[in-house]
Amino acid sequence: MSGGWLAVAGLGPGDAALVTPEVSEALDQATDVIGYIPYVARVAPQPGLRLHASDNRVEIDRAGHALRLAAEGARVVVVSSGDPGVFAMAAAVFEALEAGPPAWRDLDIRVLPGITAMLAASARAGAPLGHDFCAINLSDNLKPWPLIARRLALAAEADFAIAFYNPRSRARPDTLDAAFAILRAACGDDRPVLFARAVTTAEESLRIVSLSEAQGAMADMRTMVIVGSSRTRLIARDGAPILYTPRSA
Amino acid sequence: MSGGWLAVAGLGPGDAALVTPEVSEALDQATDVIGYIPYVARVAPQPGLRLHASDNRVEIDRAGHALRLAAEGARVVVVSSGDPGVFAMAAAVFEALEAGPPAWRDLDIRVLPGITAMLAASARAGAPLGHDFCAINLSDNLKPWPLIARRLALAAEADFAIAFYNPRSRARPDTLDAAFAILRAACGDDRPVLFARAVTTAEESLRIVSLSEAQGAMADMRTMVIVGSSRTRLIARDGAPILYTPRSA
Repeated sequence: MSGGWLAVAGLGPGDAALVTPEVSEALDQATDVIGYIPYVARVAPQPGLRLHASDNRVEIDRAGHALRLAAEGARVVVVSSGDPGVFAMAAAVFEALEAGPPAWRDLDIRVLPGITAMLAASARAGAPLGHDFCAINLSDNLKPWPLIARRLALAAEADFAIAFYNPRSRARPDTLDAAFAILRAACGDDRPVLFARAVTTAEESLRIVSLSEAQGAMADMRTMVIVGSSRTRLIARDGAPILYTPRSA
Repeated sequence: MSGGWLAVAGLGPGDAALVTPEVSEALDQATDVIGYIPYVARVAPQPGLRLHASDNRVEIDRAGHALRLAAEGARVVVVSSGDPGVFAMAAAVFEALEAGPPAWRDLDIRVLPGITAMLAASARAGAPLGHDFCAINLSDNLKPWPLIARRLALAAEADFAIAFYNPRSRARPDTLDAAFAILRAACGDDRPVLFARAVTTAEESLRIVSLSEAQGAMADMRTMVIVGSSRTRLIARDGAPILYTPRSA
């Protein structure tokens, strides 16, 4: 093995001040960095560090590539935005590991957590996830829409605050509107909805509307959407309002 | 105001390598640090930095204290373990703000996210939160048990992986067993259950059992409990097994 290892690391939402020292140290020690193009672009080039940027939707190929390199003795960091364990590369790496050669199971593999998008978005707006909540990936690339629809209805019935990952893409322009329709039927029109785009980057924008006003077109691939529970409140003030869910509910 | 501000900051699960640079910088600039005794103990004393450690269950008093100091011009950091927005001090600060003097709404208040316990526990075990999941606070200090029980049954029906915060305390020795009983009735006996104690500290221990074997006594106040969804898998290997939930479900 000659010292190869694989770290699946979270780069956080965008701001370098939200990258943990643990992740920075792994990148300093790496020989190879692997990931989706815009995430690899966030890693500073260094002499002797190989950067392998690949397109979206090739997660399993990328995971297999990383495992092969580590098995050959490389020190590999697979980078994800946010946290690698939340709708990101860690699950893909373990899928590839389970399907791959038995020897891969002996590799030194670590997952290095990061600030996932819903926590960054929540912090910018206040504390909408301050009480029980759920996180749902709205992409139907990997699961059927009826399952998503059923899960949404149950989440509303349970009165969770709901964080939507991958709310909308060019290939799926309508899923977020369909989700809002399900929630309006279950919760009424009054829930606050946060659209938090490109949080902690120079392009950051926040918008809070009621569920009745919420439209899919208010989100894109860089947007995190959080729908409040029945207890979520807005505190009005001169600046942006504060969105939070009290601890008792 | 003379430059007072309030930052509600997450210290992560324990390891200093998981404290973000953003939080470290806020602590460097602070005049006052406020929080629960063991969290304030994680902040390095410095000349001129006032440390205000208080006992548990006084969150609203602590929040009011922090807001008053900031209104008087202090640079205040309220410290939480994990992420301040997840079952922690951010919601308490906004509750106090909403109930307090109108002038508090003009304060410079920021929430600085951290690595919350479920992400740290998930990373240590693999990626059990790799697909849709929910987070539930099992403490019934602030909500009635029937509400918790109903939410658990709906979460099981929705087939979420479930992360339990505050699973058990000396005052509530039985809530986790009651939760497991509800989940066994809804999901059967086979779900893997992760008990992740004191993750990233010297006292860290991980244990994975099936839902049929899971017992409340396997957890204490420092334990994060994660119950897998129907899709969550274990990869056997010579060392600790890997627990993960595939992306498609």
